Amino acid sequence: MVTDPPRADTGDAETLGSYGVATVHEALGRVGYLGPELRPVWPGARIGGTAVTVLSWPGDNLMIHVAVEQCRPGDVLVVATNSPSTDGLFGDLFAGALQQRGVRGVVLASGVRDVADLREMRFPAWSRAVSAQGTVKATAGAVNVPVVLGGQSVHPGDVVLADDDGVMVVARADVPRALTASRARIDKEAASRAAFARGELGLDYYGMRHRLPELGVEYLSYDQYLKESNGE
Amino acid sequence: MVTDPPRADTGDAETLGSYGVATVHEALGRVGYLGPELRPVWPGARIGGTAVTVLSWPGDNLMIHVAVEQCRPGDVLVVATNSPSTDGLFGDLFAGALQQRGVRGVVLASGVRDVADLREMRFPAWSRAVSAQGTVKATAGAVNVPVVLGGQSVHPGDVVLADDDGVMVVARADVPRALTASRARIDKEAASRAAFARGELGLDYYGMRHRLPELGVEYLSYDQYLKESNGE
Amino acid sequence: MVTDPPRADTGDAETLGSYGVATVHEALGRVGYLGPELRPVWPGARIGGTAVTVLSWPGDNLMIHVAVEQCRPGDVLVVATNSPSTDGLFGDLFAGALQQRGVRGVVLASGVRDVADLREMRFPAWSRAVSAQGTVKATAGAVNVPVVLGGQSVHPGDVVLADDDGVMVVARADVPRALTASRARIDKEAASRAAFARGELGLDYYGMRHRLPELGVEYLSYDQYLKESNGE
Amino acid sequence: MVTDPPRADTGDAETLGSYGVATVHEALGRVGYLGPELRPVWPGARIGGTAVTVLSWPGDNLMIHVAVEQCRPGDVLVVATNSPSTDGLFGDLFAGALQQRGVRGVVLASGVRDVADLREMRFPAWSRAVSAQGTVKATAGAVNVPVVLGGQSVHPGDVVLADDDGVMVVARADVPRALTASRARIDKEAASRAAFARGELGLDYYGMRHRLPELGVEYLSYDQYLKESNGE
Amino acid sequence: MVTDPPRADTGDAETLGSYGVATVHEALGRVGYLGPELRPVWPGARIGGTAVTVLSWPGDNLMIHVAVEQCRPGDVLVVATNSPSTDGLFGDLFAGALQQRGVRGVVLASGVRDVADLREMRFPAWSRAVSAQGTVKATAGAVNVPVVLGGQSVHPGDVVLADDDGVMVVARADVPRALTASRARIDKEAASRAAFARGELGLDYYGMRHRLPELGVEYLSYDQYLKESNGE
Amino acid sequence: MVTDPPRADTGDAETLGSYGVATVHEALGRVGYLGPELRPVWPGARIGGTAVTVLSWPGDNLMIHVAVEQCRPGDVLVVATNSPSTDGLFGDLFAGALQQRGVRGVVLASGVRDVADLREMRFPAWSRAVSAQGTVKATAGAVNVPVVLGGQSVHPGDVVLADDDGVMVVARADVPRALTASRARIDKEAASRAAFARGELGLDYYGMRHRLPELGVEYLSYDQYLKESNGE
Repeated sequence: MVTDPPRADTGDAETLGSYGVATVHEALGRVGYLGPELRPVWPGARIGGTAVTVLSWPGDNLMIHVAVEQCRPGDVLVVATNSPSTDGLFGDLFAGALQQRGVRGVVLASGVRDVADLREMRFPAWSRAVSAQGTVKATAGAVNVPVVLGGQSVHPGDVVLADDDGVMVVARADVPRALTASRARIDKEAASRAAFARGELGLDYYGMRHRLPELGVEYLSYDQYLKESNGE
Repeated sequence: MVTDPPRADTGDAETLGSYGVATVHEALGRVGYLGPELRPVWPGARIGGTAVTVLSWPGDNLMIHVAVEQCRPGDVLVVATNSPSTDGLFGDLFAGALQQRGVRGVVLASGVRDVADLREMRFPAWSRAVSAQGTVKATAGAVNVPVVLGGQSVHPGDVVLADDDGVMVVARADVPRALTASRARIDKEAASRAAFARGELGLDYYGMRHRLPELGVEYLSYDQYLKESNGE
Repeated sequence: MVTDPPRADTGDAETLGSYGVATVHEALGRVGYLGPELRPVWPGARIGGTAVTVLSWPGDNLMIHVAVEQCRPGDVLVVATNSPSTDGLFGDLFAGALQQRGVRGVVLASGVRDVADLREMRFPAWSRAVSAQGTVKATAGAVNVPVVLGGQSVHPGDVVLADDDGVMVVARADVPRALTASRARIDKEAASRAAFARGELGLDYYGMRHRLPELGVEYLSYDQYLKESNGE
Repeated sequence: MVTDPPRADTGDAETLGSYGVATVHEALGRVGYLGPELRPVWPGARIGGTAVTVLSWPGDNLMIHVAVEQCRPGDVLVVATNSPSTDGLFGDLFAGALQQRGVRGVVLASGVRDVADLREMRFPAWSRAVSAQGTVKATAGAVNVPVVLGGQSVHPGDVVLADDDGVMVVARADVPRALTASRARIDKEAASRAAFARGELGLDYYGMRHRLPELGVEYLSYDQYLKESNGE
Repeated sequence: MVTDPPRADTGDAETLGSYGVATVHEALGRVGYLGPELRPVWPGARIGGTAVTVLSWPGDNLMIHVAVEQCRPGDVLVVATNSPSTDGLFGDLFAGALQQRGVRGVVLASGVRDVADLREMRFPAWSRAVSAQGTVKATAGAVNVPVVLGGQSVHPGDVVLADDDGVMVVARADVPRALTASRARIDKEAASRAAFARGELGLDYYGMRHRLPELGVEYLSYDQYLKESNGE
Repeated sequence: MVTDPPRADTGDAETLGSYGVATVHEALGRVGYLGPELRPVWPGARIGGTAVTVLSWPGDNLMIHVAVEQCRPGDVLVVATNSPSTDGLFGDLFAGALQQRGVRGVVLASGVRDVADLREMRFPAWSRAVSAQGTVKATAGAVNVPVVLGGQSVHPGDVVLADDDGVMVVARADVPRALTASRARIDKEAASRAAFARGELGLDYYGMRHRLPELGVEYLSYDQYLKESNGE
């Protein structure tokens, strides 16, 4: 149980959250995404906050109780288990406790339950499973140590972003670069979007057409293709 | 094909359904949950009913036709296959036939199709997959024998509950205990919810804090933690 | 890169799309379904169009850029990867470019991102995953060659149908038969639906009851069953 | 913890084990197989014994320690977890303790470790995973109650068979029927084997050929097939 | 049931088989591999033969019986199911019948059983699962039509290769090119192997080193890296 | 590309390797295991070495070529991909180059091929898949940066252990503790093994028996259990 790790600025976290996971992930060079298995419990939520991390024993939510006390406004609770589990470690009672403390959402490598209640409370949650399977409170784990979820390391105080595309982590030290690069990417995407709406092709807009021959792409009419396929 | 197995009371089944899967599962000591793979076809349904069970050959829905005749108002149709399959054994025609007989919903270990129609008809369905893959009617199975879905035995006449958290079974003999224990749990949860809304911590409310040292949980400041990690 | 393959009639494709995947799949003798892993990105879309096919390297969307230029009104873009991948090859920029060209939707064996935007734009998409994981544009693949997705071969110009039940392919040569057989099936289903609404049983309506004994189905009362189970 | 459940005869269990899983499974009408996920830890073992059942919390092997004391010569230890887990609940120390008590092998729904030692000790084990992940001894479960593994109910005292084809359960009451039916099947298979070795076809030997037309199987030469495929 | 499709030369098939799957797959431009899910039932077999294809209903091996009659010396039996299944469609009786006819092996998208016998008979088999789950003979499928396994189309008469690396298909028309390209690749690999044994690096041997800067690879000492990571 | 990261002592690595994964994992408090998905390509290997880490694009082995040059005697090559992939990034040519440099083995999050050759060369390899699927050399990644495999962070220079139970990582700073704690655990296990061979029970040997009542474990005879189950 580590208390008071340094956190990224919660305002910066919120700003990155508003940019969206896909945008910030691309802006940072395509790193930090926690993979397609972490899905939103209800659609439409979009958050950014600072990580309070939990490492739990599978089927045991003791350490989430310990972690609640460490949460501050602007945080996101991030729960890993030390071996794979889909049990429902988190439900509406925890959500109420976290909402009361100003926590912006929860990300779990395992399962979540009371999902109809979470949807109604508008408490954002991402998880690998929905499961009513209940848990015990018997075995110790850790709070605010580095954890791994979805193939990424999350350190306490890092920024965690989540929306309908999934979840990503931005290391605390990378936040300034993420802000700058994301704004640049947003501008670039707006220009691309406008060009495509005018009917321009990505092939020309991104200057890829001339590279196709050297990549081995050759154009055949359908008739030529049929002849080649038949060995003529 | 077994006819007229004794059933739990359909009123009790409805009452347990209204309590929700997570609550009844916890109240009974965390048993009976059919696992996270059985998902609702559309969100928001919540049912409880008495099981009519079907064991089908994969890719074959003959026995569901046989089972429809055995269904009465208040029943839930529960379909297992004798080896894993995701084929769409169930669609809107069956749903219409079951609605006409007062059946409250269907739970399938395999797939379901016509899901847009089921959503529109408001016929509740839980399954492991959505699949348009059609089926034959060629091989016999069984109706109203004990079946296994999601790691649980379901006997004909047992109570089956399902909502957005998944599906659970309550053995017929356990229904009275489930009713009593669920009501107690609902009261307990309401009290916890109120305490957490006031800002109380689960750590104190559940009296866990004093057990932490004996479980090996020790508190470190972030600075102490860094020093320890670096071997100082 | 094969240009201008012959296409099925886009009007026929639209008509088949309106019949729905489950209906056309059954009408054609239960062939052509791309399996339960291809799920709609948002619920409620129902399309039919002519396939423009793409074979991409995993984690690389270069060939989608090449393919956009080949798309015409009434087409559906169909993207396979040459080894399994869940990366987000497709997002809102591509969707805008395809909408501008009259493309009816996209089907991907891999992942899709910007799903909140796709939902808002009402651009229909089916995929095996939602993933923000970005991609490079480095390695050549193919456009408008036969590809395999979900255990089915899709040829350029085939009809692709997709709705909440998943995705299916109708070979170009089978379109006339699919139209006729689907209309017949729709009539047959309407008659079944009406019969079931009157309380008729499928067992009688489909004439299955008399076949049950030869299939080995025998009826036992619950008491008889208990006796047999106990070896009496 | 239930003590001294009635067991099937361990000699009968051994005999059934020697017949093999595939044979006994077919002989009993294709029921009782625990599915393809339970694999042998080392190839070539073939056992039959009487089940001592354990229900463990995931990541916790306390109840296996409790169960060892209940094991007698001729038993097979069968371990389920109350939610899915791959953790290594069982290793060489347990294997030594069980060998000392005359136990014939172990079947686990979760993971096993020390597999090089188990192979060397020739202690037969089947499991869903190999995993070095260690476990705690903190939470109670049950011994000698009915458990579900691989979609089958196993009761204490049932016969459990396992070989390179996987694991199956024979209910205690079905043992006499299993013995008789398996011997009949072995004779039948020997006759089929001899016929096939002489070049006879299953199509004729099993009398299936005349049923093919009614099942809709029609024979086409390759030329006819090509013509039909091209719509001629 | 299509009879006597044209087949590739069985001698050529054997030759390609001896080159191995990885080599032929690379030689043909990395196409035709049936994916990592198809595994050998026993290690060490290496075959090449001409495909007799089967499409079976899941849990039903009727069409394999039909197909045996179509098999000739040098063939490989290739079995797909029209929806995913792991059932044990194939065992030692079929293996005996096929060995008697000179068939070189079997590849199944589903499961296989009697694997201890197959290993002893040295009959090569590749499958997605080992499963004792038995099957019925009730529903028609097809023989010698194109089938899809592991994301690849297999046509009757194509060459199928299989070894410990898995299974691949070479279209009949591609066999001459496969032979030539594979021999070239084998020579090339022998030269590379010799160079690496002398201590040469692939980086130099393949001329990749000078391309690294343009691909964005830059070399840092560990000290420089630490400084950069800390934002200095 | 980071050059010359500090490495743990390769002699210590070898010593830990000889203790085995399960033992060291337990000794360190059950941390560091890379999960059950990483399996040995051939059974019986047992290694310990210092990690050279690689982060590759899926389907691209360019960075492995870059990494070979960084490998020294006593190293283990550890390859992650930045999104999930089963492609065969590694084969016998790489194995030869690494053997020539004194590398002890390879661990890959993706696939490996030429497995018959690797077995014959006795080059140890662990991977998530065996796959002949070939790869390109087109996109940059990283060498000797921290990577995540199987839910664990591996830093360059850490000790990596692997045997038939899977793979684990020991952070460089933890090596002295791992050595001491593993030796203690080996002594403890030897004593347990001897006690169990004498017929002692873990229940008594570990002093668990008296804790059972407080954990809620109660002993019932089978008759008492039947009565309770029937609600008497």
